[in-house]
Amino acid sequence: MEALGRQILVEYYDCDQSKINDVSFVETALIQAAKASQATLISHNFHKFSPYGVSGVVVIAESHIAIHTWPEYNYAAVDIFTCGETIDPWVIQECLKENFVSQNVSSMEMKRGMFKVPEGQKLLFKPSSEYQSN
Amino acid sequence: MEALGRQILVEYYDCDQSKINDVSFVETALIQAAKASQATLISHNFHKFSPYGVSGVVVIAESHIAIHTWPEYNYAAVDIFTCGETIDPWVIQECLKENFVSQNVSSMEMKRGMFKVPEGQKLLFKPSSEYQSN
Repeated sequence: MEALGRQILVEYYDCDQSKINDVSFVETALIQAAKASQATLISHNFHKFSPYGVSGVVVIAESHIAIHTWPEYNYAAVDIFTCGETIDPWVIQECLKENFVSQNVSSMEMKRGMFKVPEGQKLLFKPSSEYQSN
Repeated sequence: MEALGRQILVEYYDCDQSKINDVSFVETALIQAAKASQATLISHNFHKFSPYGVSGVVVIAESHIAIHTWPEYNYAAVDIFTCGETIDPWVIQECLKENFVSQNVSSMEMKRGMFKVPEGQKLLFKPSSEYQSN
């Protein structure tokens, strides 16, 4: 069996509260992390909640990075979903840990889309540089 | 311990190929599913890949729904992340199953953001109707 995608579910506990409540900071951190992993950025969309909290998604050609922050608990939930072998999701995980100054990180890697592949063959992925925006 | 959020990772296998390759169909399906669960829509952003495949995210006040489709494998990966007790992520899971005509669905529910809570108290969530767009 081979997987089409990998997904890391990351719990960033004990973060810097002011950083994860700052929508511009969070947006910049996710974009920088995506770039650090050599991902191909397609779009990004972030929202600030009142009185606190940020939600946002960076869509990359290789899938997506999503975040929801609860500054009142110094906590951020992040999903890093990648496909293909050109980028390393753990680079993104590490970048965000540093940016959010998280003192307690819990990560779980899942495989997504499991298929039987004849011996010697590989699963094909979406072309990473070809897309049409809707 | 109580969780701030719930996340269902859904593998929709054996889907209708033409439906999950149609960006408008996929976008409408996710928005309809979000509405069916009574979620509060904030934004949605979908992309069509060439020659096939769709990626997209619906950000809801209660977190997000993300999808990546591989029509060539009749497969769609969906994440349904919700917080609070006002919406049921399984309503979304079921709506999408019907829309994609998936004959083989595998779902896993995860808890996100675990915290110790004093007896008799509950975790507080983001207000679902108050946000500022960035």
